Amino acid sequence: MGAHPDADIHPEATGPAAEIVAAHQKDEPITLYSGWFCPFVQRSWITLEEKKIPYRYVEINPYNKEPSFLKLNPRGLVPTLGCPQEDGSTKPLIESNIICEYLDETYPDQTPLWPKDPYTKARMKVWVDHVTSRILPAYHRFLQHTEKSPYSLEKARSELLGAIKTWISNADPEGPYFLGKDFTFGDIVLAPWAKRMWVFDHFKGGLGIPEPGKGGEDEELWSRWRKWSDAVTSRESVNKTMSEREHYMPIYQRYAEDRAMSEMAKATREGRGVP
Amino acid sequence: MGAHPDADIHPEATGPAAEIVAAHQKDEPITLYSGWFCPFVQRSWITLEEKKIPYRYVEINPYNKEPSFLKLNPRGLVPTLGCPQEDGSTKPLIESNIICEYLDETYPDQTPLWPKDPYTKARMKVWVDHVTSRILPAYHRFLQHTEKSPYSLEKARSELLGAIKTWISNADPEGPYFLGKDFTFGDIVLAPWAKRMWVFDHFKGGLGIPEPGKGGEDEELWSRWRKWSDAVTSRESVNKTMSEREHYMPIYQRYAEDRAMSEMAKATREGRGVP
Repeated sequence: MGAHPDADIHPEATGPAAEIVAAHQKDEPITLYSGWFCPFVQRSWITLEEKKIPYRYVEINPYNKEPSFLKLNPRGLVPTLGCPQEDGSTKPLIESNIICEYLDETYPDQTPLWPKDPYTKARMKVWVDHVTSRILPAYHRFLQHTEKSPYSLEKARSELLGAIKTWISNADPEGPYFLGKDFTFGDIVLAPWAKRMWVFDHFKGGLGIPEPGKGGEDEELWSRWRKWSDAVTSRESVNKTMSEREHYMPIYQRYAEDRAMSEMAKATREGRGVP
Repeated sequence: MGAHPDADIHPEATGPAAEIVAAHQKDEPITLYSGWFCPFVQRSWITLEEKKIPYRYVEINPYNKEPSFLKLNPRGLVPTLGCPQEDGSTKPLIESNIICEYLDETYPDQTPLWPKDPYTKARMKVWVDHVTSRILPAYHRFLQHTEKSPYSLEKARSELLGAIKTWISNADPEGPYFLGKDFTFGDIVLAPWAKRMWVFDHFKGGLGIPEPGKGGEDEELWSRWRKWSDAVTSRESVNKTMSEREHYMPIYQRYAEDRAMSEMAKATREGRGVP
């Protein structure tokens, strides 16, 4: 049958996410083709919730795709957004960051998530890129480290902490959010992984961010990180798009043992970045 | 002295580019810190020229940076845009794609280069990403191939041609540009490399795109590619930001022998993508 080795995942959202899935079953102009567990999907999902955009939620197992979904998007990726066109048809859009900016531009009056000022917006994008090009590859190298890796666990940990430090040192000093008082896409881009930092405590002997008061010369930076992380991980839109931890567990177990076969897992194994 | 091994390049723009450099020496609100030879810089330079934005041009050798430039941008990358702020100060902006979009948003009425319709714009970005994540890494794997590479020249060539085919098959069928009649950022993003395809003829035994009429089942795609490439490589803004070929030659010679030490060259050597 050639089933994908990662296809055996819990089939649907649970916990808080199950409630908003249930509330988004009727037809709407916008459709989110989603995998409940996927952090890239969660960026788009948070954006829809923050902006209170009406949408239909459709659960897709990206490792076992239905033909009807492949008809809309032959590449079969999640998230895919079904976007209404002027002629009444629906066209697909992929790539979580692009989906989020599309939603912000299509519904500009509902809780804007991109800064209006072009320079502030451009600078935000530089740090959005840092998340994709530095933090996420480091997160995955650390998570997928095994005794067979060509690098040490300690090196992987310090690379992730270094990428986070560079990022937070460029955040607004007061916060709580990256750009200051307002929650923006600059926060959404990393929020799903901020909610998934527990994997290092569970599988890898700890993330290694110093306890409050024990950060030495980096105390101020780590204190700013905790302020950001607390604000983001307690935000309603972020929490209600999460499922129960027990169902993430077998998925992350596969990553932690470097057996996962997602595109991200394979890219990490081959020394590449976010595919 | 620890000079960068790539620092010995021709010190300034020549040919057509020398003329527009000479015409952009007086102070303006916008400053382009540039390396005349750099294709990423050229994206921003083309954008400035297309939109007829007043700017000052400052030549930087990115392998031998001046302290005054490092004061503005400690990371020392080109392109860097000096951007005027409301309080009269100047702040730096990096990353060619982000610089170009900033310029388009800051001067929205002068030859818009991003589509107004959010879906068309989002779809364009998907194919802009394809250039960065697929075409450019393949371009560099092919260019930097040597007998020591863990892959064959033929594989590198066919990977580049495959990435180009996927891209052009998603272009507007009529063209001549990616989105149709209008020249947009969807063209600018690849234009500098379209002007640098000669490196494969010179150093690698040919790019391998079939002659007209010899494309077999891909004839239509290659014909569409030629139409795009002809339109873009003959465009004024693209040509006047180019220098004389002889001065690119030693730079590309280093790449072709896999001796270049730019960030892009090193990333390619390590199997990674655009850094």
